[in-house]
Amino acid sequence: MKESHRVIIDHVAPQVPQDTGEKRVFPIKRTVGEAVNVRAVLLCDSHDLLQGAIRYRALPRGRWQQVPLTDEGNDQWVGTFTPDKVGLWEYTVEGWVDHPGTWQRGIAKKRDAAVIEEVDLQMGAQIYRAAAQRAVVAGAKSAGERISTVAQTMEDAAIPRSQRVTAALDPTIVATIAAYRDESTLVRREQPVPVRVDRPLAGFSAWYELFPRSTAAKGHGTLRDVITRLPYVAQMGFDILYLPPIHPIGTIARKGRNNSVTPISGDPGSPWAIGSSDGGHTAIHRELGTEEDFSALRDACQEFGLELALDIAFQCAPDHPWVAEHPEWFVQRPDGSIQYAENPPKKYQDIYPLNFETSRREELWNALRDVFLFWVDRGVTVFRVDNPHTKAFPFWEWVIPEVQHRNQDVIFLAEAFTRPHRMYRLAKGGFTQSYTYFTWRNSSREMRDYLTELTSSEVIEFFRPNFWPNTPDILHEDLQTGGRAAFVTRFILAATLSSIYGIYGPAFELQESQPMQPGSEEYLDSEKYQIRHWNLNESWSLAPLISTVNGIRRSNPALQQNRTLRFHHCNNDALLCYSKHTPAGNCILVCVNMDFQNPQSGWVQFSPEACGLQATDSFTVRDLLSQVSYQWEGEWNFIALRPTDTIAHIFVLEQP
Amino acid sequence: MKESHRVIIDHVAPQVPQDTGEKRVFPIKRTVGEAVNVRAVLLCDSHDLLQGAIRYRALPRGRWQQVPLTDEGNDQWVGTFTPDKVGLWEYTVEGWVDHPGTWQRGIAKKRDAAVIEEVDLQMGAQIYRAAAQRAVVAGAKSAGERISTVAQTMEDAAIPRSQRVTAALDPTIVATIAAYRDESTLVRREQPVPVRVDRPLAGFSAWYELFPRSTAAKGHGTLRDVITRLPYVAQMGFDILYLPPIHPIGTIARKGRNNSVTPISGDPGSPWAIGSSDGGHTAIHRELGTEEDFSALRDACQEFGLELALDIAFQCAPDHPWVAEHPEWFVQRPDGSIQYAENPPKKYQDIYPLNFETSRREELWNALRDVFLFWVDRGVTVFRVDNPHTKAFPFWEWVIPEVQHRNQDVIFLAEAFTRPHRMYRLAKGGFTQSYTYFTWRNSSREMRDYLTELTSSEVIEFFRPNFWPNTPDILHEDLQTGGRAAFVTRFILAATLSSIYGIYGPAFELQESQPMQPGSEEYLDSEKYQIRHWNLNESWSLAPLISTVNGIRRSNPALQQNRTLRFHHCNNDALLCYSKHTPAGNCILVCVNMDFQNPQSGWVQFSPEACGLQATDSFTVRDLLSQVSYQWEGEWNFIALRPTDTIAHIFVLEQP
Repeated sequence: MKESHRVIIDHVAPQVPQDTGEKRVFPIKRTVGEAVNVRAVLLCDSHDLLQGAIRYRALPRGRWQQVPLTDEGNDQWVGTFTPDKVGLWEYTVEGWVDHPGTWQRGIAKKRDAAVIEEVDLQMGAQIYRAAAQRAVVAGAKSAGERISTVAQTMEDAAIPRSQRVTAALDPTIVATIAAYRDESTLVRREQPVPVRVDRPLAGFSAWYELFPRSTAAKGHGTLRDVITRLPYVAQMGFDILYLPPIHPIGTIARKGRNNSVTPISGDPGSPWAIGSSDGGHTAIHRELGTEEDFSALRDACQEFGLELALDIAFQCAPDHPWVAEHPEWFVQRPDGSIQYAENPPKKYQDIYPLNFETSRREELWNALRDVFLFWVDRGVTVFRVDNPHTKAFPFWEWVIPEVQHRNQDVIFLAEAFTRPHRMYRLAKGGFTQSYTYFTWRNSSREMRDYLTELTSSEVIEFFRPNFWPNTPDILHEDLQTGGRAAFVTRFILAATLSSIYGIYGPAFELQESQPMQPGSEEYLDSEKYQIRHWNLNESWSLAPLISTVNGIRRSNPALQQNRTLRFHHCNNDALLCYSKHTPAGNCILVCVNMDFQNPQSGWVQFSPEACGLQATDSFTVRDLLSQVSYQWEGEWNFIALRPTDTIAHIFVLEQP
Repeated sequence: MKESHRVIIDHVAPQVPQDTGEKRVFPIKRTVGEAVNVRAVLLCDSHDLLQGAIRYRALPRGRWQQVPLTDEGNDQWVGTFTPDKVGLWEYTVEGWVDHPGTWQRGIAKKRDAAVIEEVDLQMGAQIYRAAAQRAVVAGAKSAGERISTVAQTMEDAAIPRSQRVTAALDPTIVATIAAYRDESTLVRREQPVPVRVDRPLAGFSAWYELFPRSTAAKGHGTLRDVITRLPYVAQMGFDILYLPPIHPIGTIARKGRNNSVTPISGDPGSPWAIGSSDGGHTAIHRELGTEEDFSALRDACQEFGLELALDIAFQCAPDHPWVAEHPEWFVQRPDGSIQYAENPPKKYQDIYPLNFETSRREELWNALRDVFLFWVDRGVTVFRVDNPHTKAFPFWEWVIPEVQHRNQDVIFLAEAFTRPHRMYRLAKGGFTQSYTYFTWRNSSREMRDYLTELTSSEVIEFFRPNFWPNTPDILHEDLQTGGRAAFVTRFILAATLSSIYGIYGPAFELQESQPMQPGSEEYLDSEKYQIRHWNLNESWSLAPLISTVNGIRRSNPALQQNRTLRFHHCNNDALLCYSKHTPAGNCILVCVNMDFQNPQSGWVQFSPEACGLQATDSFTVRDLLSQVSYQWEGEWNFIALRPTDTIAHIFVLEQP
């Protein structure tokens, strides 16, 4: 015979949507101080009243805390708690039959209908005495006595019934009784929902990627040169400085400029062809510097309020030490050679993929984990992971918690440009942030649809999008052909649609736009294969705009999250309008011209109520880019944007 | 270290949506011969090809059977199986890396690009030899030898490469290899999805409810009188004859006519006030007859193709034997009395509810189960359960499988008119069919919204709606005021929107429409409290229409399910238009005038493609009510309906 609990708990949210066949339960994601708004269905037979609560704690052994759930009607209950430190948390939901409350509701109705009988008060007294007993057991002797006294009154036939009912329903006594809950019918959802709580940077960050070897005035840049670049990066308002792999670059089958398979002497090779006789994933490319230089860079970043992110690409050049030391970690071919990367008919002879079907799995996984731990121990707490979808998913689901166990601050960004289910699975499995399809969402419609999926579905519980207008691999056609307007537009979209975004510079701010060939998304003379020297002082640099927008992001908490993103109707589809707001009343309305060639104007439908503000017929919006204010009247207002100057508005709603 | 399987199985459907915290997994529902169309996401790192399969079996110990899943793109896989007998089934999904297929795809691309190397063929030979080995292990020696021969050819450098590739990709050898799957990477979803397979009656049935005591020409009707009523019920085309409780009626606090608390002598009482000195839930009301009469009725039903359904109401009159024998099964009050039913301030002194918090839970549950088993042993396999939501949910989740374990044919109909989550929970917990809000969905919009929820969401996997235009408790205002048109409209809606429906007769077909008082949904002179004598031969009886519509239902499989229900646009919202169809091409289009007072006409948008038929500019629809055919041209066609005669069309699409 099964359990007989009358109370049933169902539809607990938020949770990561997952197949019930999955043994592991994936955590929802929050940052420190971000609320978890819990919803649950509590069911019980008959008409009895229920009560419910959330229980939550920090893992592994935090004290269980409790907040009440409140009944929203239709069996829906809601409550909120807010984790206050990084790490894994969990919450669960419990519900129980509220016998005192049920009796109180009934007796009040009977009083109003004048149908109270003596036995009704006797039953109440019985229920109250049980509550008194619970109070005593809980150590609240005086509360117990107060309840007992009322119970005695309720049974005293010498006192008029109405007077006894009044005593029983006295708000103080009702509250006292409620404080000593009757757990005899309590049901608790046994499997708690895990919550991964990250530091705020995980949910709000602007990334800047650069190639260290291109930071010198001439020749091969070093980690020390990167230090001299830090004021420039910090001035633009970025939070994270991210470096492509800094490890020794393979010499066997090295690629030349523009991905040539016939390099010439002196070609530096691709940083993603990792490993040489100088070492592998825990070594530093000799020409970039030493471990000491690395430490100096890490410390300098800290001084500039920047965090250093490393790129971890689990693949090996043919001369990576692992190839000779652990040939079993790779696919060995019948002729004794190691299988290089292929996407038939394409061959990548400079890269050996790891074999996740190896019989030496434990050895391989530990070695890969140790790469992360090596850098964590050297102060790195942000990793951008290259192509995680080409490594076994269970590996990530194992290694990320392992590394975070060492340091809960560690952030993992998944660079997986693949099919949606695979991207979402990586995020569920532990990646803190994820690359997205942003680059290829170019029309207003595409942008609305994609952002709605990311922010208004369960996806928001586990997938934190990181929007990149460009990367060293992706120079989108829009940037090739759209001129300055395209760069500005895509930048503002990335930085305001998503609380997390990044650019690959200085190619971005200097508006590098030449593809390797027409139809390609590869850069011509890509830094992936050669050293570049940039003039950061070009008059056309977008650095000032970037600085302004990052400043706007930092001073407007509405832009530091995505949950409140709402799109607003505009009668001209070339204009994309959306808002974000906070409960405290910070409201940002962004209007962007998606047409890089022509001025566009139209009427936007927006009312402050959409941002949780009070309805008003007239309100002021101030453009944080131009500092021009506009008085808006009613729901529909006119905007006009031009690719030549006013490309976008980032309005803040002025509080009346 | 966790499992390392590269393949991940996710989003398996269909399943009953449920909280991951729930220990018990609820079965989806099907009837014998109804397909289970399985969808699943199969994921793997990298670009390797996968294969997948459904495994399914009848429980408890049926042989596992297997059907392949096919790749729909975007990591979605689909397949189908069809359970062929009643009882509990289960299915699961498995997936594995297709090493031979991956190699074959690669070698074909390399051949086209002319970049094959000797080692590519050597790797293929290695993969083929492993397949040969699997064939041999599986007992297929000759298949193994055929594969080995090809592997040998592949390695024979004396043969031109193109010739060896052709040998390797020979379709016969490719299929032979595929037949001996490589299970080294196989992943199986460990928790199978349960499937409750019912007999066809569970998914397609027309119910007819009558009060046995009102079936005599005069005086108190008996079960023998019901036998004489069977030809009438069968002639109308019903499948199930359902009787309100047939047990002894309590005498203490018995209700009089029209729910009076001051009955007069001879008032028969309410059949739902169960139990007297004559017995309780396993006894038959003396004035209805004996166990022998009951057996005769059950057998007679069978002769007429009817199935007998009993109403099980787990509540007791004060003189029910259980009250004296097991006072602990009820709530005992401090004054020694038993708590009667209350909905404060209302009191129902003639009914004692059972106490599902009793300490004698096991005893009580067993006794209730034994009530079902008693009637099952007497040939009853359909139960309508009264107010199941006032009994503990876990009780139903335990008792229904217990009873079905005795007889897998048993059908349970939940009469729960309560909040949505509670109704759905009862259905998940095991009820075969459920009462619905149909009666209170009266506009076109309400009907579309409600049916869309019932048939186009996950609800269809566990909740089988049973639509009732009236019940002894519910005479909807529409029937009170809408005249014949209302009765006909509501009947046709119930019988064609839902594959399962019922009416309470003869009140329905004789268009009984007087409420107890204005604003009440109670019948005046309700059969719940008195005996009625009906003249079944009234000229206005709807019996002929009912007979026609039930005939249409039986001869059109489209109306025997709800999954293909689609609503069609009409430019006049007073007209509701919808279709149902089968894969075999039976297509029914129903147009109903929702206005009981006025003629309504408009243009309906419908094309045969909506029913999976071939697109055509011109097609014939035949009204199965009037037998009039219409030639329809194009997508929009005109219909005109009148409350006085043509109230609805039930069109069948004529096959061209």
